[in-house]
Amino acid sequence: MSAERILPPHRSVRVFRAEPLPYETFERILAEAQRAPTDATAQMYSFIRISSPDLRSRIAAISGDQTHVAEATEFLVVCADVRRLERVLESRGHRPGAYPAVGLHFAIVDATLAAQRLIDAAEALGLGTVCIGGILNGLEELVDSLALPRGVLPLFGVCLGWPGEEPVERPRLALSAVLHQDAYREQEPGEIDADVTRMAAITRSRDWVSILARYFASGGTMEQRESGLRRVLERQGFAW
Amino acid sequence: MSAERILPPHRSVRVFRAEPLPYETFERILAEAQRAPTDATAQMYSFIRISSPDLRSRIAAISGDQTHVAEATEFLVVCADVRRLERVLESRGHRPGAYPAVGLHFAIVDATLAAQRLIDAAEALGLGTVCIGGILNGLEELVDSLALPRGVLPLFGVCLGWPGEEPVERPRLALSAVLHQDAYREQEPGEIDADVTRMAAITRSRDWVSILARYFASGGTMEQRESGLRRVLERQGFAW
Repeated sequence: MSAERILPPHRSVRVFRAEPLPYETFERILAEAQRAPTDATAQMYSFIRISSPDLRSRIAAISGDQTHVAEATEFLVVCADVRRLERVLESRGHRPGAYPAVGLHFAIVDATLAAQRLIDAAEALGLGTVCIGGILNGLEELVDSLALPRGVLPLFGVCLGWPGEEPVERPRLALSAVLHQDAYREQEPGEIDADVTRMAAITRSRDWVSILARYFASGGTMEQRESGLRRVLERQGFAW
Repeated sequence: MSAERILPPHRSVRVFRAEPLPYETFERILAEAQRAPTDATAQMYSFIRISSPDLRSRIAAISGDQTHVAEATEFLVVCADVRRLERVLESRGHRPGAYPAVGLHFAIVDATLAAQRLIDAAEALGLGTVCIGGILNGLEELVDSLALPRGVLPLFGVCLGWPGEEPVERPRLALSAVLHQDAYREQEPGEIDADVTRMAAITRSRDWVSILARYFASGGTMEQRESGLRRVLERQGFAW
């Protein structure tokens, strides 16, 4: 990867210095997040800033004992949110439509666009970040703890703070794996082999496929999260 | 919003100059997109670059006659993709798990993180962008046209090119609407009124709620997209 970089490098930072993040800086970062594109002007997301140490500890535990969730200077739960826009409609006498799948689709997209712009803004200021997908291990408890109404779904967490470590950049797939032209192109077996080699450095064991298998193979973490997510989708109004 | 900005301003650009985008620059932007955070190292996304003028015209038509889809220098269809990682697992003798809801969740997040980093990188170089949610109007045709296998779902499009217009920045909700602390806080009626006033400038009619209603009220665009999206979710393996 010799091409000149455009943005500050992204590496997941899991160790943070005790140095405070001024609230004005935090607000500037959030203002950048808000400037992300949004479908149909609706801004279908909410950020829940977790300041309570007890809540932080619970979420750290839920997420698989990720101590950086408790220790980061700031921790946000990024949520898809169609509730707020429905209240705007109701306040003007409109009846919201019934579109659980489309609502889920666009609200996840909107929330994630805002979250990535938040991450890019934070990193531009020298802050470190890491996304926490592990909140899905205890999604129902999280919905209860954060008093999330129907129409709001937690997606992932984001830790923010001044980096207390300098992680190396992790590898990524070959561009040819993720970029297609005019139609989907399946990888040839040799390309898969090359990607497996290329990705080895992403884990200390140098066995990328074992990491993937732990999450995505039959019996893995993703399957274990499935029933909890389905229950929460039903409860929050995103099931059909 | 007097606070000092961190990133170049985002405005949706729908008019592009004929000036070419060198392929090396396009690749640098894609390399930045690839550096976005990714859940469990899996990179669950694909970008389909649409270079065929016929395909561009069809997608422009599907999306509600959005001529910028045909005219932009580059146009990408951003897809959630669990197919590629399942082939990696299978290549090493692992059986992929069954997690349609969790797969949909994380693949939309992964794809959108990468897409927003792509947008931030493009804008840092002075390019203009606009996201196209309207591809959902003809999702089944798109899945056919792009030969998307099971496990791959189109999310939205992104137009890229050198700006041929200088749109003003559009308003956003008050920060207090999207930022909560430790629990979800519903807006008071007065806050909704203030947001409706604040958002007026997002549309020429100065009637934001009518725009929202056109999409999100009963009988609106989102409801019309629902059955098509459900069929595609079923067909692509993301239904449960």
